[in-house]
Amino acid sequence: MSTKIPRSRDNDYTREAANARLKFLQEQTGVELKHTAQFSFDPAVLPGNIEHFTGVAQVPIGIAGPLVVNGEYAQGEFYIPLATTEGTLVASYNRGMKLLREAGGVTTTISDDAMQRAPVFMFASAREAREFGQWVERNFDEIKQQAEATTRSGRLRDIEQYSASRFRFLRFNYTTGDAAGQNLVGKATKAACDWIRGVYPGIEHYYLESNFATDKKTSQINVLRTRGKRVTAEATIPAHLIEQIMNTNVELLYRGRQISTMGSFLSGVNNNGAHSPNGITALFIATGQDVANVAESSAAVVYVETTPAGDYYYSITIPSLIVATYGGGTGLPTQRECLELLGCYGQGGVKKFAEIVAATVLCGELSLGAAVVAEEWVSSHDQYGRNRP
Amino acid sequence: MSTKIPRSRDNDYTREAANARLKFLQEQTGVELKHTAQFSFDPAVLPGNIEHFTGVAQVPIGIAGPLVVNGEYAQGEFYIPLATTEGTLVASYNRGMKLLREAGGVTTTISDDAMQRAPVFMFASAREAREFGQWVERNFDEIKQQAEATTRSGRLRDIEQYSASRFRFLRFNYTTGDAAGQNLVGKATKAACDWIRGVYPGIEHYYLESNFATDKKTSQINVLRTRGKRVTAEATIPAHLIEQIMNTNVELLYRGRQISTMGSFLSGVNNNGAHSPNGITALFIATGQDVANVAESSAAVVYVETTPAGDYYYSITIPSLIVATYGGGTGLPTQRECLELLGCYGQGGVKKFAEIVAATVLCGELSLGAAVVAEEWVSSHDQYGRNRP
Amino acid sequence: MSTKIPRSRDNDYTREAANARLKFLQEQTGVELKHTAQFSFDPAVLPGNIEHFTGVAQVPIGIAGPLVVNGEYAQGEFYIPLATTEGTLVASYNRGMKLLREAGGVTTTISDDAMQRAPVFMFASAREAREFGQWVERNFDEIKQQAEATTRSGRLRDIEQYSASRFRFLRFNYTTGDAAGQNLVGKATKAACDWIRGVYPGIEHYYLESNFATDKKTSQINVLRTRGKRVTAEATIPAHLIEQIMNTNVELLYRGRQISTMGSFLSGVNNNGAHSPNGITALFIATGQDVANVAESSAAVVYVETTPAGDYYYSITIPSLIVATYGGGTGLPTQRECLELLGCYGQGGVKKFAEIVAATVLCGELSLGAAVVAEEWVSSHDQYGRNRP
Amino acid sequence: MSTKIPRSRDNDYTREAANARLKFLQEQTGVELKHTAQFSFDPAVLPGNIEHFTGVAQVPIGIAGPLVVNGEYAQGEFYIPLATTEGTLVASYNRGMKLLREAGGVTTTISDDAMQRAPVFMFASAREAREFGQWVERNFDEIKQQAEATTRSGRLRDIEQYSASRFRFLRFNYTTGDAAGQNLVGKATKAACDWIRGVYPGIEHYYLESNFATDKKTSQINVLRTRGKRVTAEATIPAHLIEQIMNTNVELLYRGRQISTMGSFLSGVNNNGAHSPNGITALFIATGQDVANVAESSAAVVYVETTPAGDYYYSITIPSLIVATYGGGTGLPTQRECLELLGCYGQGGVKKFAEIVAATVLCGELSLGAAVVAEEWVSSHDQYGRNRP
Repeated sequence: MSTKIPRSRDNDYTREAANARLKFLQEQTGVELKHTAQFSFDPAVLPGNIEHFTGVAQVPIGIAGPLVVNGEYAQGEFYIPLATTEGTLVASYNRGMKLLREAGGVTTTISDDAMQRAPVFMFASAREAREFGQWVERNFDEIKQQAEATTRSGRLRDIEQYSASRFRFLRFNYTTGDAAGQNLVGKATKAACDWIRGVYPGIEHYYLESNFATDKKTSQINVLRTRGKRVTAEATIPAHLIEQIMNTNVELLYRGRQISTMGSFLSGVNNNGAHSPNGITALFIATGQDVANVAESSAAVVYVETTPAGDYYYSITIPSLIVATYGGGTGLPTQRECLELLGCYGQGGVKKFAEIVAATVLCGELSLGAAVVAEEWVSSHDQYGRNRP
Repeated sequence: MSTKIPRSRDNDYTREAANARLKFLQEQTGVELKHTAQFSFDPAVLPGNIEHFTGVAQVPIGIAGPLVVNGEYAQGEFYIPLATTEGTLVASYNRGMKLLREAGGVTTTISDDAMQRAPVFMFASAREAREFGQWVERNFDEIKQQAEATTRSGRLRDIEQYSASRFRFLRFNYTTGDAAGQNLVGKATKAACDWIRGVYPGIEHYYLESNFATDKKTSQINVLRTRGKRVTAEATIPAHLIEQIMNTNVELLYRGRQISTMGSFLSGVNNNGAHSPNGITALFIATGQDVANVAESSAAVVYVETTPAGDYYYSITIPSLIVATYGGGTGLPTQRECLELLGCYGQGGVKKFAEIVAATVLCGELSLGAAVVAEEWVSSHDQYGRNRP
Repeated sequence: MSTKIPRSRDNDYTREAANARLKFLQEQTGVELKHTAQFSFDPAVLPGNIEHFTGVAQVPIGIAGPLVVNGEYAQGEFYIPLATTEGTLVASYNRGMKLLREAGGVTTTISDDAMQRAPVFMFASAREAREFGQWVERNFDEIKQQAEATTRSGRLRDIEQYSASRFRFLRFNYTTGDAAGQNLVGKATKAACDWIRGVYPGIEHYYLESNFATDKKTSQINVLRTRGKRVTAEATIPAHLIEQIMNTNVELLYRGRQISTMGSFLSGVNNNGAHSPNGITALFIATGQDVANVAESSAAVVYVETTPAGDYYYSITIPSLIVATYGGGTGLPTQRECLELLGCYGQGGVKKFAEIVAATVLCGELSLGAAVVAEEWVSSHDQYGRNRP
Repeated sequence: MSTKIPRSRDNDYTREAANARLKFLQEQTGVELKHTAQFSFDPAVLPGNIEHFTGVAQVPIGIAGPLVVNGEYAQGEFYIPLATTEGTLVASYNRGMKLLREAGGVTTTISDDAMQRAPVFMFASAREAREFGQWVERNFDEIKQQAEATTRSGRLRDIEQYSASRFRFLRFNYTTGDAAGQNLVGKATKAACDWIRGVYPGIEHYYLESNFATDKKTSQINVLRTRGKRVTAEATIPAHLIEQIMNTNVELLYRGRQISTMGSFLSGVNNNGAHSPNGITALFIATGQDVANVAESSAAVVYVETTPAGDYYYSITIPSLIVATYGGGTGLPTQRECLELLGCYGQGGVKKFAEIVAATVLCGELSLGAAVVAEEWVSSHDQYGRNRP
């Protein structure tokens, strides 16, 4: 019995092709994928999103909100679709959204926007690598032209340079419109590098990626220099709301934050906040983002203050939030619907979506932060999260 | 018009309750969630997994394999369900699995296993914090008893201690059976801490979490000390297979790895490999893992060598892989089926599953690594990933 | 003309041997080392401290104080010898000591003590590396005996284990009496490892150091796990003293600290304080410490609070302060005098000395911190530091 | 009895003033500083370098070399003065210099040069912070003029910007001629910031330093972006020399490096090499550098290869080497002599000196690296380092 997964030469994106694979898996493993086999769309929509398509994961979506956002792109009330299997998550974000609603909403600001590919060029010595770096600076316009010739929406903003040994690391920073842009920056950078290799003598070798873009990973460089969108969500919450809705007080929350920040410095964590990846992941799955980018998007910097009036200023900056409202999984049936629910689908939606993500995250930070401090964290998980084991 | 999301007091886990929310959302936003509203199971299975359930994200699953694993728990051939919307991903992992199959499979080893909750205790001065630390050491048995009284499957293995200023950070390390265990360790640690607070004088305050467990975040401490499973996947790939299947050679791959590792050291990334979170995320979505744990699980350490015979030894260690085969989303319909496909559902499956994840990751590292070096990376994305923008 | 540096076969530690080298250098370079040639001691004291001895660097020493310390080992007033060429440094520490004197002194606590050597053992696979780790745990007593047989003052406290790929990293933690101990732990660990290699089959190779002790470098692991002494200095400074002596106020200082801590988190620095290495280096040079250990000793964690009364609680924890009062350079003429000035020379002095260093550091943090906030930083450097360029 | 350290109002930089303090210390502590009181120069040279001058630390200097450098500024043979009290250090560097001499010398390259001060500006919200950042970009020329008006040798090269929360971190990068420049960049940046504060509305507050320059500390940002000089030293050493002089072979050295680099990635160290701060510190003390800058200067990136011919390519990049040949302690008597010995004293010497430091470091890396691998590390310390405890 062949162990080769069946694939249709004519058209692999059909129910028949999927069924052939389901049958094959059942023969091989004895397992019937009954639920996985059920989906509501024509597989013909899938080329470019998956290979060997066989069925779907049905990930439950809960709705939280309304979330009130005072952004530059997102303004007003939003109902947030969160795809998750973790009990308490939707309830917790919903509670935070209530708090922030009462407090007048979340202010959001995008302060940077860049998608990278980071090739490395190797030379005979450090000196030649340095000369090359200077040449790249002088020839930026031509390099930009070579890169942009391959893409409609990508624009090469600048090239950062880093050096060590006899290597020159180049970090190509692009804006990519409403796409996340990882593919287009790869293609554009390859075109630029191939051109460079052709005209610049003395390059021993080049690799298109050097772990200086840190795609699908988290890094200090992306915290510092941005990958995707750099978004800040901030709000000042009146003390009485903290007491009424969160069952705790500003002073305890504030001190908890200080000690948690010290813990973060010691533990070497990429985020001194509470759990921003919970909300980010749930939104990413619901809206067809590349969910592996949770790695990068998990980084965050939280800064809080108590105001002279005793209220609580809370801000969170997500330095490498990678989002799209066009391309990738954003056009698939349920994913597109969830983006439409937020008024973000397609061209022109990506900054609005980034702001909504950041505002959602801030609500979750306050909710979990307060639950820890109010010592309700465990009891609410007992109530909502079953805690089976 | 009220903006409050409808919720049924009697039973919120029904199609009716979901439909009420769908109707409400349509009224509020004008958007009809047609596809999202379609799912193949009874919402009665959902308590403990979601609140305000409204529908599902349908995430396409492609099958890669067979993957050959020579583990201690996973042995033989496996067909890997990958839930993703990123074109090329399944094809790339599938190619890596072919290479490793020809090379005799992937050897996997779990070298550590621990789930944490990390409270912090505050004292009047550093000296009192130090005394407390010594007391905790002496009273470990009693603390363990208090913690374990709250859980069937959690076992308190040890308590690491860290100190700064007038604080004592305790990292409670548990084994948690086949559950990921974040909730149970929270509950157990709270019980232990409440007991400590009752018997130990002079505690100014304690917080149940201090960012020393770095739940849903990635950290140096978890790279060093493990969170979830610490798994290594390794293999030696004959040079001729690299040439035949990957269109490149060992020397180029090896040099690329060296330079990428230097790039990693400079950029401060949590993973000197290529893209392990791609495979991890796709497997996590398919099998009902807590996908936000991609943050922690994204860390990795790659080490390679060329053998005297000129072959390529490749290893990847994932120091904080958080997985479950029981509890959380693992019992939901499609998620359970995918775990069953791997023979991992339920009690006794978690180490087998961890090994399968690590083996999958190794295949993906070799495939993408080779594509970068062979300069096929961009062209294969052009073929499979549409590259719309 | 030979370019070989002259060396006396009989006895190289004499003025004659030094003079021969001075003459040689003058012949080779035309430069006469007039001042460098002048020293007040017999070179016969130098074996074990230097080779090719030719003269001395005369580093000016200024005295600051009295510093008031409320330690467990250091108690009372101390005059601190600071060897530096940086104008303002002594004046700034002196000012901080005045502030803390008025505030009742600095409380110091040593919370950990460990010196490391960290060998790595290589195996055929991760599985064998894991087995070896378990064997090391079971055979700790014998390993300890092997290690301690080589040393009078070193005691093997424990062995931490870390793993990746097919390697096992062992971090041998010793206490080393009043010596810094880098040499003795090297010798003891080598003896233990040679014994292990002899009795444990299957070790492919071992290296005595793996960059897990991070000798002469700074690391997250040493911040977390301690290298040398882990010391905290803390004090509460009344608000009026901040105003009278420092020309600023608690609120501005406090806010500056919060923002500086956020800057630290972003920049990936090993110390969220101001300039602890200034005082540490000056004390190290004066007292014959191994000054290269400033690398490790530069790490610090600062935590501050405002008290309900409006006063300023300030603490600094130095997690890897490497000090000695015996061995190394501590017995040389000027160095010994400076240790004697502090009542710390020789056996039994090391913890007292560690406390004095930490207390000194805290004074400097407050002084510079206040100067930055009071905007006197630049003007005082203009006054004391000449600012020539 | 007064505890106030005596200070002369007329002229504190005399033997009499120093003697008054020596007498005072003897009265207070009973300790006579006999050797410390002996120095060969007139204290009148000291203003700008020290306050409360009382005597000197006599730090023994040993000579290593000749070191052969093939730099752009340093060319030929140099005798290196190393001020240290650590036995074996001079011998070990000397051995490395012999190896590299035989191998044809060390090639050195300075690839960047920048000294920083990093103020932070606070605003009401992230949005206003972002606007400010754009204004700074547009007004760079005027800011530059304001900054440079305060200094003869400082030039403001560019201003990097970083953001989080409602703050804007500016990293002012200067070139500073032959001075290290920390003071001048402080003064220049303060002038620029005071001007900015005067003309730009809406600044809530600014602090002149935010821990984004990480003065006297080590950081990822300085590894990435350079502080002081970024220097690479590199060489290819024939295999037979490794065997003859170092008693080991290229393969063992190379494998040790790979594993040490993995250890470095795991331990979170700022330097994947062996012990560069040893040589740097000894040179810094001898030549009047600000020795506390060992903190920054301790960072390094090592990259090695085996060549097709089986030889050993070794490079080390020091990304934040802070050196001066003018100002600070460089003009003091012994310090100046040691700089003159290297032909580096005064104007125009700093890049030559930076190259000599880097070349020295590379020799030490090979020497210690080989000693570890050849298992001679402990025995040579037994021979040269006395190992008293």
